[in-house]
Amino acid sequence: MLGSFARLPSERVPLDSALHRVLAEDVIALENLPEGARSTVDGFAVRAEDTFGASDSIPAFLDVAAAVAMGIMPDFEIHAGQAAPIPTGGFLPPGADAVVMVEYTNPAGANSIEVTKPVTLKTNVLEKGEDARSGEVLLPKGKTLRPQELGFLAALGITKVDVYRQARVAVISSGDEVIPIDRKPELGQIRDANGHAISALVRAYGAEPVAFDIVPDNAGMLGEALGSALEQADVVAMSGGSSVGTRDLMVETVSSLPGVEILAHGVAIRPGKPTLLARQKGKAIIGLPGHPVSALVVAQVFLAPFLQYIQGGRLEKGPPGHRIKAMLATSIDSTIGLEEYIRVRLEVTAEGTYVAHPVFGKSGMLSTMVKASGIVLIPMNAEGFSRGDVVQVVQY
Amino acid sequence: MLGSFARLPSERVPLDSALHRVLAEDVIALENLPEGARSTVDGFAVRAEDTFGASDSIPAFLDVAAAVAMGIMPDFEIHAGQAAPIPTGGFLPPGADAVVMVEYTNPAGANSIEVTKPVTLKTNVLEKGEDARSGEVLLPKGKTLRPQELGFLAALGITKVDVYRQARVAVISSGDEVIPIDRKPELGQIRDANGHAISALVRAYGAEPVAFDIVPDNAGMLGEALGSALEQADVVAMSGGSSVGTRDLMVETVSSLPGVEILAHGVAIRPGKPTLLARQKGKAIIGLPGHPVSALVVAQVFLAPFLQYIQGGRLEKGPPGHRIKAMLATSIDSTIGLEEYIRVRLEVTAEGTYVAHPVFGKSGMLSTMVKASGIVLIPMNAEGFSRGDVVQVVQY
Repeated sequence: MLGSFARLPSERVPLDSALHRVLAEDVIALENLPEGARSTVDGFAVRAEDTFGASDSIPAFLDVAAAVAMGIMPDFEIHAGQAAPIPTGGFLPPGADAVVMVEYTNPAGANSIEVTKPVTLKTNVLEKGEDARSGEVLLPKGKTLRPQELGFLAALGITKVDVYRQARVAVISSGDEVIPIDRKPELGQIRDANGHAISALVRAYGAEPVAFDIVPDNAGMLGEALGSALEQADVVAMSGGSSVGTRDLMVETVSSLPGVEILAHGVAIRPGKPTLLARQKGKAIIGLPGHPVSALVVAQVFLAPFLQYIQGGRLEKGPPGHRIKAMLATSIDSTIGLEEYIRVRLEVTAEGTYVAHPVFGKSGMLSTMVKASGIVLIPMNAEGFSRGDVVQVVQY
Repeated sequence: MLGSFARLPSERVPLDSALHRVLAEDVIALENLPEGARSTVDGFAVRAEDTFGASDSIPAFLDVAAAVAMGIMPDFEIHAGQAAPIPTGGFLPPGADAVVMVEYTNPAGANSIEVTKPVTLKTNVLEKGEDARSGEVLLPKGKTLRPQELGFLAALGITKVDVYRQARVAVISSGDEVIPIDRKPELGQIRDANGHAISALVRAYGAEPVAFDIVPDNAGMLGEALGSALEQADVVAMSGGSSVGTRDLMVETVSSLPGVEILAHGVAIRPGKPTLLARQKGKAIIGLPGHPVSALVVAQVFLAPFLQYIQGGRLEKGPPGHRIKAMLATSIDSTIGLEEYIRVRLEVTAEGTYVAHPVFGKSGMLSTMVKASGIVLIPMNAEGFSRGDVVQVVQY
């Protein structure tokens, strides 16, 4: 369902703003790299044939021509029997077709050297266009830009790139009992943990959270907040509705938006059953449970891969993150018909094996999220896993 | 050597700026979470003893008292034989000591229910302070703050945290031949790939690059740039000196700084041999090779773990990143006495095994960095690895 949404439009940004963004267009080389043949070592530019048969006992003697300086195209030619000192990265003078490393040369008088090892054509030479050829695709659409890609583009004079726009995500917490975190709760009230946890998760996936005021359990105000969120943002992540009545309120409010399509109302995962997925005018509305533990699991399972996808990445199933294999330290039960997400604490044995310790704790305990360093998924048709089973863990 | 530097001082930041930062102080709970006993399910708050022995065939009959509303502390008591409807998260009324899930109840007339399964003391109840107890260490110094930690702190009313300051890293490229990336090189000139790749790497590790103009191979100007960089930044990452003469120039300039200590001049790694490590007034100077491929490897091997360390993390040896085991697709040779960093392209087989394909290419080819998705380290005392060997790969 999430894959049926369109990706975000692209924007043109300078290289220094492009880290971890995804290319929305192929990048084409407009130049050759290098622009001319360059040495890959410190040594002497030579004609390879002048070194054939050279050895320690019978070295080849060559006359030293002018030296190649960094950053200057040599204005002299190398003739038969000549060699030119050249630094790593220096451009080969005309006539030269290989470079002898300095280690395989010895001075031999004022203006000559002896070469003790032969080189073949193009040895220690990076040819014109060998690194990148003008007209070729340097980096394909869909590529995520790491420091190395940015360095490569910089070398080719590409100063701006077309990347997918970052998602703006409206983060709304709702509930009569929810108060801002800088206020002291009266008995029965709870602070807005969700607003901060979900905004941080949005940032962690390269998107931009748009913070909204906490909305009470009131259809009119909820509708107003949703309308404003859909105008300002690409995605709405709304948490709340922890009790049956207020869950209904969120569903009713979302359902009454003009042209809305409810994609899912309730999903077979635990925690996170009361999740709501809807679309209005191409924008996604994700209704998260009110409980912070459930809200964060749902955000990991649905919101995070969705953000990666609309920002140009692949749409993966389940929580993004590095997946490792680990041995379960304790058996865990599961209910048939529900995908369960179990928080685990990972340890590494002396032998380098990962051991996953399920973090138990009553439903709704926030401290369990903090103790966990990974999540194990128990598939819908499994009754659980036994102690010692090797399971896949998403590190987080 | 890098571990002999002090970590950066701490600063107090609001939660919304604290993602991925490292705590510089223990965070202590100032309140209990929850503040009172709360239900973890939708159901009925009861006295557990009233349900003892209840079953489908012989249910326990209870009178329904007033309902518990979200966000309001109940002002009524549960007496023997009574039950109060309660939503998930609702506070238990005085007298109640357990909650029966709604699934195990049936309506029985206008104001009664039948309970079909017994509950024991505290069943489905999160007790006062069970999630966090006032006075205890919530999160220890050294903890990296993920979305879940921020949610936990928010729930406890902690709106600001003391975290290690982000490093400011002066990024300087030097060399007569180096020009800004928006200029067209004349023959012999090269664009400043390093400035952009190293700045991006600095950002990728949560630090802040301070960009400097390109410095020509001139002792006075190099010294001036270094002096200004050491004033403005915590770390200086200076690349350049690709030819023997200019390498010497950088070493001489750094050596002539007042009170400087040269920690290493040349390191036994490939690529990256001409690396320079120095300290002045507690600040690190990392001299990177001029070639972008070597510069980026050295930045991964030394600068990246150093930035993690001074920003509060652990000092790891070698490039940070997820480490996986992979099978080598091709043999690779190595020189005894040098640690070699080989770039590899990772593939996953249908069985889920990683296969590492060394990315070959002449020294200095930037396209090899872009094709790689991992690095294999060949230890100093190894002659290489054979095809089929299982090696450790740092994904990047």
